[in-house]
Amino acid sequence: MTETTGYSGSGLVLVKNPHLDLLEEDVLYHLDLGTKTHNLPAMFGDIKFVCVGGSPNRMRAFAQFMHRELGLAGDAEDVADICAGSDRYAMYRAGPVLSISHGMGIPSISIMLHELIKLLHHAKCRDVTIIRIGTSGGLGIEAGSVVITDTAVDSSFQPRFEQVVLGDVVVRSTELDKELAEELLACSREIPDFPTLIGHTMCTYDFYEGQGRLDGALCSFSSEKKLAYLRRAYDAGVRNIEMESTAFAALCGMCGLKAAVVCVALLDRLQGDQIRAPHEVLWEFQRRPQRLIAAFIRKRLGLRPAGRALCPTD
Amino acid sequence: MTETTGYSGSGLVLVKNPHLDLLEEDVLYHLDLGTKTHNLPAMFGDIKFVCVGGSPNRMRAFAQFMHRELGLAGDAEDVADICAGSDRYAMYRAGPVLSISHGMGIPSISIMLHELIKLLHHAKCRDVTIIRIGTSGGLGIEAGSVVITDTAVDSSFQPRFEQVVLGDVVVRSTELDKELAEELLACSREIPDFPTLIGHTMCTYDFYEGQGRLDGALCSFSSEKKLAYLRRAYDAGVRNIEMESTAFAALCGMCGLKAAVVCVALLDRLQGDQIRAPHEVLWEFQRRPQRLIAAFIRKRLGLRPAGRALCPTD
Repeated sequence: MTETTGYSGSGLVLVKNPHLDLLEEDVLYHLDLGTKTHNLPAMFGDIKFVCVGGSPNRMRAFAQFMHRELGLAGDAEDVADICAGSDRYAMYRAGPVLSISHGMGIPSISIMLHELIKLLHHAKCRDVTIIRIGTSGGLGIEAGSVVITDTAVDSSFQPRFEQVVLGDVVVRSTELDKELAEELLACSREIPDFPTLIGHTMCTYDFYEGQGRLDGALCSFSSEKKLAYLRRAYDAGVRNIEMESTAFAALCGMCGLKAAVVCVALLDRLQGDQIRAPHEVLWEFQRRPQRLIAAFIRKRLGLRPAGRALCPTD
Repeated sequence: MTETTGYSGSGLVLVKNPHLDLLEEDVLYHLDLGTKTHNLPAMFGDIKFVCVGGSPNRMRAFAQFMHRELGLAGDAEDVADICAGSDRYAMYRAGPVLSISHGMGIPSISIMLHELIKLLHHAKCRDVTIIRIGTSGGLGIEAGSVVITDTAVDSSFQPRFEQVVLGDVVVRSTELDKELAEELLACSREIPDFPTLIGHTMCTYDFYEGQGRLDGALCSFSSEKKLAYLRRAYDAGVRNIEMESTAFAALCGMCGLKAAVVCVALLDRLQGDQIRAPHEVLWEFQRRPQRLIAAFIRKRLGLRPAGRALCPTD
């Protein structure tokens, strides 16, 4: 069974669940929000951009950066965690931008996305663009390069996401928005100090054995077998490897959200497995997708390019 | 290909990776620890119990509780996050007990376990018992019941974990330590104010469609189909559902760690999907596995039962 992607003409988010209307109250448990306890349209109705990433600290830094980039009133340092009542995810807003952490891996991002999509639905948000800004392992590219995903693929390099529903496997498309990817690539030309490219992103269920690392607690394969696998991935068009993109593409696609994945490569996996760059180098790498997305959002909002100020600080 | 569980006679953790000895330095990236930057034997060599759970706040509260339970010197409130340099996981210690968060889902716990197992190996820890203390959805049991897992099963109710290695699927056993489960059940008889039982635990890759919930952003099945699936799970011996146990059992088993899974049921999934109990009720539920594990650790260490004091506070 293959399910296809659907877009809505109204710009509204498409929840595809007939049971939802029967709920007297919808408790978004892992976000610590709910339809009876919170006025979701008032809190979120004007959101136009949702940016998600694994680390709560990074998503807080991104919200603070966007606060400054958009010239919002008040102190950027004061952004408050909207989900402070839960320590599963952290959520911040800066004007029309929502910044949310999703933890690591497909199950973790999937819980957050189900509840986020319901939140956007309850809040009656329109024309929302959602972007995952993350970290990844590069494949045949320089550490610090930023990869805009054209297609998210699984560990067999196929553009599909397998979802278990009541014990049966359902296959879903992992298509992302091609125009959005091109728009982001165009924005990257304004930021000459790091390389940005478009490529396939491979999504795995773990960081060690699933990504062919030789440095986990378990490893049953040789360095040669590892490199042969990674080279096959490269030949199939994969330029980076992470752990969320297929589920993100599938869920957002089915709910009519225009979605993109923009990840920095922390290392080149053809050169090694361990992430050994100093903290300050890694932190600067992690800012790169943020700087690209800030340029994109400023452009979409009709603000002038920020030039030198376009660098988030801690 | 099926891989089997192995136990070590020496009591040492078994890393099964010949490449590890060739590393000049092992950076445990997501824990922000390393063999060159930290003296791991001095920091962790005397650890005998490792307790893991999804939420960082809960694992901090558990470390503080154990600090008091073991009558350790100093203020329990002062327990420090050993992984403070990373916001991926939180780690605390109280005497011989290490308390670590693992986030949500198999990929997230798998990264933590690979790095934890290497940490225990580098630190030359012996005779370590590892217990996951978590939350879950119950199946045909009262909310607040504590389930000690005898067998972790997948969404087809089979005791197996499928790990992708270089694009191929490897099937692993999800056996847990039966004696440990019985020892924990015996401890539970000292805590009469909540029900504790032994049963199968089903582990899924998501919280909504994979667990048959009717309240996600997507739902393609009827309430009848959902209940039929959950009843089949119940008939197969499943008493609760969570998102980490198969990977936890497989990884710990392969590395010779005696492992148990002890989760409280936040609701009975045969009665509903939404977690709607008040925060204070849920918080008290989440303390129950902690209280059971504290009784177990006190017994193992030859301390007298704590009696009335056996209740963690925030």
